[in-house]
Amino acid sequence: MSEPAAPMDDPDYKAAIVDLLGALAYGEVAAFERLAQDSELAPGLADRTELQGMAATEFGHYRKLADRLASLGADPVTAMVPFQRALDEFHDRTAPADWFEALVKAYVGEGLTADFYREIAANLDEDTRALILEILDDEGQAAFAVDRVKAGIAADSRLAGRLALFGRRLMGEALVQGQSVAAERDALTAMLAGGVGRPGFDLATIGRLFTRLTENHVARMGTLGLAP
Amino acid sequence: MSEPAAPMDDPDYKAAIVDLLGALAYGEVAAFERLAQDSELAPGLADRTELQGMAATEFGHYRKLADRLASLGADPVTAMVPFQRALDEFHDRTAPADWFEALVKAYVGEGLTADFYREIAANLDEDTRALILEILDDEGQAAFAVDRVKAGIAADSRLAGRLALFGRRLMGEALVQGQSVAAERDALTAMLAGGVGRPGFDLATIGRLFTRLTENHVARMGTLGLAP
Repeated sequence: MSEPAAPMDDPDYKAAIVDLLGALAYGEVAAFERLAQDSELAPGLADRTELQGMAATEFGHYRKLADRLASLGADPVTAMVPFQRALDEFHDRTAPADWFEALVKAYVGEGLTADFYREIAANLDEDTRALILEILDDEGQAAFAVDRVKAGIAADSRLAGRLALFGRRLMGEALVQGQSVAAERDALTAMLAGGVGRPGFDLATIGRLFTRLTENHVARMGTLGLAP
Repeated sequence: MSEPAAPMDDPDYKAAIVDLLGALAYGEVAAFERLAQDSELAPGLADRTELQGMAATEFGHYRKLADRLASLGADPVTAMVPFQRALDEFHDRTAPADWFEALVKAYVGEGLTADFYREIAANLDEDTRALILEILDDEGQAAFAVDRVKAGIAADSRLAGRLALFGRRLMGEALVQGQSVAAERDALTAMLAGGVGRPGFDLATIGRLFTRLTENHVARMGTLGLAP
């Protein structure tokens, strides 16, 4: 294993990490907001508090990421702003039409986010990686959605087609917005592509990353009883 | 000091505690929802995350209260349902029209809730009191609202009149809904009034309690630079 030395004195690396943490932080803020909103679609108080609990957990992640940004001397809001448009657009375009879509979005969204965190963790400096892994410890809260979605499909088989379509839309919009961020944020993309003279991802690695993200998405859709 | 013995084997006391915890738990759920919604009124991301942070903290309180209900053998949802109408009505009738009203509601609401928790803690069994005091440890998050409201009034003096009116409405609605809950929930009211054969509040004590809650409200309005 080649372990990169703590490289925060490299200004390019530090800029890329501030970008990465800003993107993740706004991702958590946006997830908080949308999960809190989506919880209102729940048929009852027990389901409602499940989604609210996920929202509260996301906000805890935001706090950790914002604290790290501050300790790097970066203003959290300034670091988040560049990612606001893409993430808001993702959420606007994938607003759930009902409780079942909210469940699919919570489950697929948590899984996709966890995959992304896991993938990027490997090539980061030790402190940043430890933070990412700490946040990953909270995953699995959306597992309750699986039973709910399966029960919904059992009660109304037409639901499966609509939710499968919605799941594809989620993945498609995530990829589109991800690409638009990558195109705009050079330092971040350079780091993820290994372009700042340290171990990182080359383009073939990024291709394999997208393949793994997609494979995991397909597996999650299967777990929900939905066609990929 | 007369310390009440752990009285959970008294079914009346236990029923009253389940009622109390259910009321507090739904109070936290409703606060989470409304703070999350109200955060959208914020003029910028920094202010938005302040209110979201308060919301996330309220959800943490909900979790603690729900865990305690479960450990008493009570279903949290069943315990919360009787208080849903009154608390939803309170929030519906005090929905902030803008960011400044959201700030006043966050500040006044946190203060009033903390006062109520502090007042009831004294006469509860030790375990319940410890839980209440643990939750009280989080208070003070709305302090940021003071500077914001004062700056708003400095920029537009007409704001003070509208916010003072809104603050009075908050207190009025809280008292109305509190009374409607007290009228409906006999076990809870009996406990708060000391009616289940153990140290509690008599009616004169309740009168003084309301006086203190009101005095503290007046003091908070003053801190915000508003007429009571």
